[in-house]
Amino acid sequence: MSIDLLISKIKQKDNPSVVGLDPKLEYVPNYIKQECFERYGKNLAGAAQAILKFNTELIDHLYDVIPAVKPQSAYYEMYGPEGIKVLYETIQYAREKGLYVITDVKRNDIGSTAEAYSAAYLGKTQVGDEVIPVFDSDSITVNPYLGFDGIKPFIEDCNQHGKSIFILVKTSNPSSGDFQDLIVEGKHLYEKVADLVNTWGSQSIGKNGYSNIGAVVGATYPEQVAVLRRAMPNTYFLVPGYGAQGGTAKDVANSFNKDGLGAIVNSSRGIMCAYMKNKYPEKEFAQAAREEAIRMRDEIMRCLG
Amino acid sequence: MSIDLLISKIKQKDNPSVVGLDPKLEYVPNYIKQECFERYGKNLAGAAQAILKFNTELIDHLYDVIPAVKPQSAYYEMYGPEGIKVLYETIQYAREKGLYVITDVKRNDIGSTAEAYSAAYLGKTQVGDEVIPVFDSDSITVNPYLGFDGIKPFIEDCNQHGKSIFILVKTSNPSSGDFQDLIVEGKHLYEKVADLVNTWGSQSIGKNGYSNIGAVVGATYPEQVAVLRRAMPNTYFLVPGYGAQGGTAKDVANSFNKDGLGAIVNSSRGIMCAYMKNKYPEKEFAQAAREEAIRMRDEIMRCLG
Repeated sequence: MSIDLLISKIKQKDNPSVVGLDPKLEYVPNYIKQECFERYGKNLAGAAQAILKFNTELIDHLYDVIPAVKPQSAYYEMYGPEGIKVLYETIQYAREKGLYVITDVKRNDIGSTAEAYSAAYLGKTQVGDEVIPVFDSDSITVNPYLGFDGIKPFIEDCNQHGKSIFILVKTSNPSSGDFQDLIVEGKHLYEKVADLVNTWGSQSIGKNGYSNIGAVVGATYPEQVAVLRRAMPNTYFLVPGYGAQGGTAKDVANSFNKDGLGAIVNSSRGIMCAYMKNKYPEKEFAQAAREEAIRMRDEIMRCLG
Repeated sequence: MSIDLLISKIKQKDNPSVVGLDPKLEYVPNYIKQECFERYGKNLAGAAQAILKFNTELIDHLYDVIPAVKPQSAYYEMYGPEGIKVLYETIQYAREKGLYVITDVKRNDIGSTAEAYSAAYLGKTQVGDEVIPVFDSDSITVNPYLGFDGIKPFIEDCNQHGKSIFILVKTSNPSSGDFQDLIVEGKHLYEKVADLVNTWGSQSIGKNGYSNIGAVVGATYPEQVAVLRRAMPNTYFLVPGYGAQGGTAKDVANSFNKDGLGAIVNSSRGIMCAYMKNKYPEKEFAQAAREEAIRMRDEIMRCLG
């Protein structure tokens, strides 16, 4: 089971955290940008190559400390087809280094179209009699607004190809309550989503007692996290919102079960921009990221005590 | 206003329909696939080139009949970076032919990330001091589950760059009721979403009385369409579900206002695969699509009487 693969990597590194690769161009050190702009042009291709160099150096300095990375698709799509190629290359490079890759795409559509998305990110695409893996992530994020028939193709590919998904339940952003907190049949909408995620995941539980069908639960709402933790004992949580978004290690502690498992905490900006915050020379950006990743690991592990 | 541009194209063609470009490889005539596989390989690149040839021939035969096309991103993403390049080329080709392009991406994320998605599809991406359009659609679809801060960047780019968005309200798929039909404060969730879409769009109303902030409302739920039509008088509806999904011209009539405006009806498979259904020779696939698009136009216009 894919979730068992993630758990084995978390145990091996003794680190339940994931580094978000959301490479805004302003995060990339100037010397990398200058080099890539000179070589490829000050254009989308040059920007994409700068991001690739940034990502691969980060991965080189992080892969023995962290179990997983989470590239955020938007920050590649904004550079067009060249950016998407770098997303592809980042996923492959991270997997070669033994990292579990959660591609944050939040895809959603009607059943037939969800099949196409699932082929792109989890399954394979058929061309004639050839069956070809495409982005081939270990996992993606999925939006539940269209209901079960928009989720089913992803679940089928999880089961068939050894993958996992994390379905948005309670997101970390300030407006997440606009719809997610509405009261439906005496419960919050996010709790109704949680109930269905439980149901949808119940046939995909691995040897550690967790399902391949996980949930996104934001660290910025620690009380809701605690409620959801109790309501979803077999569901792994992908927890955004730690660090730059305001979630603390104490806040994220609520997202774990008593077995010390059940959650993987994301930090993006906090790691990628550690060299700015901690005033390292630009060329030491990856070393700064590594030290911050170790600090984050130790802080979370202390709170799990 | 971007919605006025769409309306002017609808009036010019006397046709409130949009052709969905969801080019499954099985829809592409064999002679195109063989040619492209021989030239580019039986691989993702060959498949992507076959799709591009299919799309451009369809557009060549449709652009004087229809006001708009709606490429569905999933069917390009499933061919990887090569597929995304073909999505880009399809958008540009359709716009050059004077078509309004609604790129169906259903993107959604927290505010900072929604900004990146919006730059990709509606706005521009900054690279150094250069500001570069990327996919540069006229419009995209957006999922509302994250609430206002995940929608705001798209609205800002609509206002700044003359674009529109269609927010998922009531989708056409069988499970759309799983969450969208739940009762919240005495209303269906989709009605609550509709209320907020009204509010979010109220500052972006053009000279025809419609907002740049539209809604996706499936033809497969004609009663709900009628309720939403009354509740959202200034909102343009993008209406999927006609034809292959089961919606009839009578069903979609509910989605129009008395001014004969307010909706644009999508058909994808029905147009793209008309040559199969109506038993045309493969090489006449685009002519078959044209005839079906004219038939659909006439059928809808008859129901609007």
